[in-house]
Amino acid sequence: MSLNSFGHLFRVTTWGESHGPALGATVDGCPPGVDIDESAIQQWLDKRKPGQNKYTTQRREPDAVRILSGVFEGKTTGTPVQLMIENTDQRSKDYGDIAEKFRPGHADITYWQKYGIRDYRGGGRSSARETAARVAAGGLARAALGVLAPTIQIEGYMVQMGSHRADPAKYDMAEIPRNPFWCPDAQAASDWADYLDRLRKSGESVGAVIEVVARGVPAGLGAPIYGKLDTDLASAMMSINAVKGVEIGDGMAAAALTGTENADEIRMGPDGPVYGSNHAGGILGGISTGQDLVVRFAVKPTSSILSTRQTITKSGEETEIITKGRHDPCVGIRAVPVGEAMMACVVLDHLLLHRGQIGDAGGQIG
Amino acid sequence: MSLNSFGHLFRVTTWGESHGPALGATVDGCPPGVDIDESAIQQWLDKRKPGQNKYTTQRREPDAVRILSGVFEGKTTGTPVQLMIENTDQRSKDYGDIAEKFRPGHADITYWQKYGIRDYRGGGRSSARETAARVAAGGLARAALGVLAPTIQIEGYMVQMGSHRADPAKYDMAEIPRNPFWCPDAQAASDWADYLDRLRKSGESVGAVIEVVARGVPAGLGAPIYGKLDTDLASAMMSINAVKGVEIGDGMAAAALTGTENADEIRMGPDGPVYGSNHAGGILGGISTGQDLVVRFAVKPTSSILSTRQTITKSGEETEIITKGRHDPCVGIRAVPVGEAMMACVVLDHLLLHRGQIGDAGGQIG
Amino acid sequence: MSLNSFGHLFRVTTWGESHGPALGATVDGCPPGVDIDESAIQQWLDKRKPGQNKYTTQRREPDAVRILSGVFEGKTTGTPVQLMIENTDQRSKDYGDIAEKFRPGHADITYWQKYGIRDYRGGGRSSARETAARVAAGGLARAALGVLAPTIQIEGYMVQMGSHRADPAKYDMAEIPRNPFWCPDAQAASDWADYLDRLRKSGESVGAVIEVVARGVPAGLGAPIYGKLDTDLASAMMSINAVKGVEIGDGMAAAALTGTENADEIRMGPDGPVYGSNHAGGILGGISTGQDLVVRFAVKPTSSILSTRQTITKSGEETEIITKGRHDPCVGIRAVPVGEAMMACVVLDHLLLHRGQIGDAGGQIG
Amino acid sequence: MSLNSFGHLFRVTTWGESHGPALGATVDGCPPGVDIDESAIQQWLDKRKPGQNKYTTQRREPDAVRILSGVFEGKTTGTPVQLMIENTDQRSKDYGDIAEKFRPGHADITYWQKYGIRDYRGGGRSSARETAARVAAGGLARAALGVLAPTIQIEGYMVQMGSHRADPAKYDMAEIPRNPFWCPDAQAASDWADYLDRLRKSGESVGAVIEVVARGVPAGLGAPIYGKLDTDLASAMMSINAVKGVEIGDGMAAAALTGTENADEIRMGPDGPVYGSNHAGGILGGISTGQDLVVRFAVKPTSSILSTRQTITKSGEETEIITKGRHDPCVGIRAVPVGEAMMACVVLDHLLLHRGQIGDAGGQIG
Repeated sequence: MSLNSFGHLFRVTTWGESHGPALGATVDGCPPGVDIDESAIQQWLDKRKPGQNKYTTQRREPDAVRILSGVFEGKTTGTPVQLMIENTDQRSKDYGDIAEKFRPGHADITYWQKYGIRDYRGGGRSSARETAARVAAGGLARAALGVLAPTIQIEGYMVQMGSHRADPAKYDMAEIPRNPFWCPDAQAASDWADYLDRLRKSGESVGAVIEVVARGVPAGLGAPIYGKLDTDLASAMMSINAVKGVEIGDGMAAAALTGTENADEIRMGPDGPVYGSNHAGGILGGISTGQDLVVRFAVKPTSSILSTRQTITKSGEETEIITKGRHDPCVGIRAVPVGEAMMACVVLDHLLLHRGQIGDAGGQIG
Repeated sequence: MSLNSFGHLFRVTTWGESHGPALGATVDGCPPGVDIDESAIQQWLDKRKPGQNKYTTQRREPDAVRILSGVFEGKTTGTPVQLMIENTDQRSKDYGDIAEKFRPGHADITYWQKYGIRDYRGGGRSSARETAARVAAGGLARAALGVLAPTIQIEGYMVQMGSHRADPAKYDMAEIPRNPFWCPDAQAASDWADYLDRLRKSGESVGAVIEVVARGVPAGLGAPIYGKLDTDLASAMMSINAVKGVEIGDGMAAAALTGTENADEIRMGPDGPVYGSNHAGGILGGISTGQDLVVRFAVKPTSSILSTRQTITKSGEETEIITKGRHDPCVGIRAVPVGEAMMACVVLDHLLLHRGQIGDAGGQIG
Repeated sequence: MSLNSFGHLFRVTTWGESHGPALGATVDGCPPGVDIDESAIQQWLDKRKPGQNKYTTQRREPDAVRILSGVFEGKTTGTPVQLMIENTDQRSKDYGDIAEKFRPGHADITYWQKYGIRDYRGGGRSSARETAARVAAGGLARAALGVLAPTIQIEGYMVQMGSHRADPAKYDMAEIPRNPFWCPDAQAASDWADYLDRLRKSGESVGAVIEVVARGVPAGLGAPIYGKLDTDLASAMMSINAVKGVEIGDGMAAAALTGTENADEIRMGPDGPVYGSNHAGGILGGISTGQDLVVRFAVKPTSSILSTRQTITKSGEETEIITKGRHDPCVGIRAVPVGEAMMACVVLDHLLLHRGQIGDAGGQIG
Repeated sequence: MSLNSFGHLFRVTTWGESHGPALGATVDGCPPGVDIDESAIQQWLDKRKPGQNKYTTQRREPDAVRILSGVFEGKTTGTPVQLMIENTDQRSKDYGDIAEKFRPGHADITYWQKYGIRDYRGGGRSSARETAARVAAGGLARAALGVLAPTIQIEGYMVQMGSHRADPAKYDMAEIPRNPFWCPDAQAASDWADYLDRLRKSGESVGAVIEVVARGVPAGLGAPIYGKLDTDLASAMMSINAVKGVEIGDGMAAAALTGTENADEIRMGPDGPVYGSNHAGGILGGISTGQDLVVRFAVKPTSSILSTRQTITKSGEETEIITKGRHDPCVGIRAVPVGEAMMACVVLDHLLLHRGQIGDAGGQIG
């Protein structure tokens, strides 16, 4: 019940700080018999890795994952899988200034107020570096899904940077890996590149909206009332650093619809129900419909910026701060693989829960 | 771990269906020594009660709560509090049609696919009636907060109906109880009344956005990384029937801000840190800052409408459906006290967690 | 996580006090589609019911269970099942004396020290009456086992009363329902009757040892390391009022064996492994072997006795106490169905867990 | 909820196998501000370390612990503490025989039946080596107790080896560290040395009983009904490898007492209630009385022995087995520090729970 864990049956506990010796994920509840090795997980970490282009932090980390337990002769054993990533770029620097001042928008002040401990080294536990452990766990979840539900495909992409939205009419999913923003709209990606370059040079940052879709999820997953699939997805995404909003399907825009507009009409297809639209984002009453699961989340702008802001010190003196250092002008970019990882973990978890609680008692249609 | 419970130390399990003999909340972990009686809980249930004006369902339920355990001589004992509400208006009617057809937008189809059981009586467990149990639990949470943290005030109100938004510049919190929409903008409430009346007469429905604020919450509450205060609030609000999006502070709009705009600057006041703005909605790194906690959630339009929609039957035949019966044209209205109840439960839970895990080890400023 | 619940996927929360209006069990996670009605549960409550013979308390309670939720048209729906038992014999009496004095061996003093609340009405929450709720939940678990694993048979019986042990060489399982002690040794039961009669008349009480066996449990159940089958059984049995020791298989006597004596040798039978003995009580490494699960627990003597004992009052004054009232000379008798209920809940829970976490990935032999 | 974790607020997840690269404990919920370094934990690991005398396995492991997270500048930060122990003595050997045969009394067969994976390297996850991680976590718990409740002292010792019991009349707690059995009875320890030497030379093994006492525990800890202090202790001790029975206070012997004998009479001392005896082992109704907490557990004989036993292979063929290798003739010896570690974790956990759920609402006497 302590609170660095998520998931019910596929349960992930992340540990570690930005500048400690290592960080990682203790994954309990992975099904046995899943083929896995470090390279299968590394591919997802490489997607999130910093320093890959000029739009992400220049911190140099190989983010090499080691599997310390739970795997024998290339297969999971059903026992806890320990995924460790050593921190190699713990560049020594003078933290003196940051150690005393609270950076606005960062968790410095609240961690101090809560814990009475000030780990000023790059945010300590509240650093976005923690998300590397999530991505490692998500890689394991994807491998398990590959065995249990091979039809499921999970994909994340950026749909908005600052106030600039990609145009769904121009989406081409093949574009996603071709630009540094994982954006399915090539034109938007090109515009964003110019925009973000200007922001980066001026020491400014900006927010973003990420969409993550899971295709091929069977109907019936989700555990009402308080472990609903959407509830767990909201929780998973909101737990990512800097996220301020989460939407399922039409999300906040659902408020503006009428009941007639919002009703996803149902017809019968050759393999079961077919829906005329997907306002629901693939979830009704907390349970998957078999349509695409669609989740969006908003990431606030990176709080580390070069403009001077008012703040205070631990001793309560008013002062100013400029946050120098290696930072992302749009931390939302690296949130894409993190969102995918959380989706993979939640979907796997609900597959296991459904298998445990329901077995094959679910109802057929037709 | 089964999934009709929420909360960590203040743990609420709701039970019951729309048309069963009763429903309720089993509340485990309420601190001992809290003054409570049924009337103190009833006041919140009365706020949510159906049939109070023409904008809510005409089902007539007294929603009278009984305390069956956990209270002795007017005080909580520290043992589980059972709050039971009997269903009195189980009007007998012909469900034959609904029993076979799935209502679009409702959870009929997914419950069937998951459980293989079709409780067609008003939605069964997926009915919004379940939220009465939440409100009862929230009433107990408020009573406990009254003892543990009397400065905390929780208030919910509607800020958008359909595409019509209230204007924050016109907010007068004294207006909230004066109109049927719990809207702080008197002009908006008046406009909404006309609008909703037209919708109601045409058998149509519409969505809404609710905002819930908790004032007076001390800094330091929240349990990173996966039991963050915002994570738990997102989960709590997303679990409410028909909710499709949750925002903290600026929410989805945070994506459009720059880092400079988003930084809530900090100065020193007589009683501690004072912030120049509250884009963060009172939460940094998952921990409360001491500013107002601000949560918003979008409720989709009621799925029960009088327009004809395409659907299928259990046996897979295509058909049409019109959902007659007693329903709310804007179920968001009654979601206001539900959102307040969830906020009360989450804040109390994190107060208890903080006391347990941290005690008085938190840091002082100045 | 609050602590009136047990079980992982089949999760039972009991609530209620000895002298409140009602008590019950909120059961979350019961599989859907299980045939159940009140009479199927009532049969087990009747087995535990007080006042059935002169050896159990003369409190007259029908202990009639009502199903308030989670069942529709005679089948479980997969949603929470609320099992409520109203307290009818809340005989008014003068508690003045007990309200001030702490009864030695009872939880009066520790509940006061913990909660600062003194519910003196028959022990309040710490009364053995709480076990009625367990038996109701166990009845539901048995019904679910009847569907999921019909080979499983659960049976409890008393093997020791005071210092008098039944003789395994004389066990005849058909004897169990024929004597008031659920004892498989007819001679022992006869001796115990005389012995207990003398104790009862002198206002004395005595302890007992109960054994519960589950036959037909498949190999492979149990979740190492901290949700082992034996760990969960130990926890379940130790949570029963007045239990002071729990044993699996040879239990404490295993300490006196050599490795050669203790090894349950394995041979191959027509349907899988066959063991030459069952020192292990059907569990190796926390996982079921397919042999009988064998659990024993010791119940201390009822603390309510007619002999005068030294004690103190709430205000710290030394005094004496005699506990009058309606009490069991050997509370272990009624612990038999309670132990069975806990066994049923634990076995069902682990069946569901295994199904969720492992599916059909388990290994075959031969 | 996955099942390699224990504890509610002080939550320990152990991971790792006997012959993998490393094993460890992920400890979530340790209070912040606790002084800790690796040497403070190492002292307890050294107590458990194999190869210290001729009575424990000759496997040579330094069992050096590394703190990978959660500690900054010598103090816990309130974030997860990762304690890692690398396996250095992974001596290469021919497992061919063991890889096919199931060792009687070991978990080989049940792990295979459950997981369909056979990690034959020294038992894999079911090896007693996992207990090193518990001892590390217990070392951290002791450090936290040193801050939160410095009066608490935890001590374990062996009270029975095979059928030879130590004599409580001869207990001298100063003897405990002076003999290899942690036995408070010097004469018994001397006798056991001869006895165990003979067993060791003949390739035989024997069981043991360990007692663990916690002194100075305040009254009021424990969370009825299903997170009782005794319930959690029973669970914690039963989860240790090879444990078959757990007792609180008089334990199984309580069955033979009368109510008069069993009543721990209460008088008033200068600092609160004083008890005339401690049959209850310091727990009434699941809550601590302020007396010594007394727990005992029985460890079965090591299953690895040199005598030939009947068994089967994975393919179902009957065969014989002799378990060669480096093993403990009495694994109970090294269970002493493990039992202490579990006691420390449980007591700390309940201190935190009490602080969270009750605060200072507990009742005073006098």
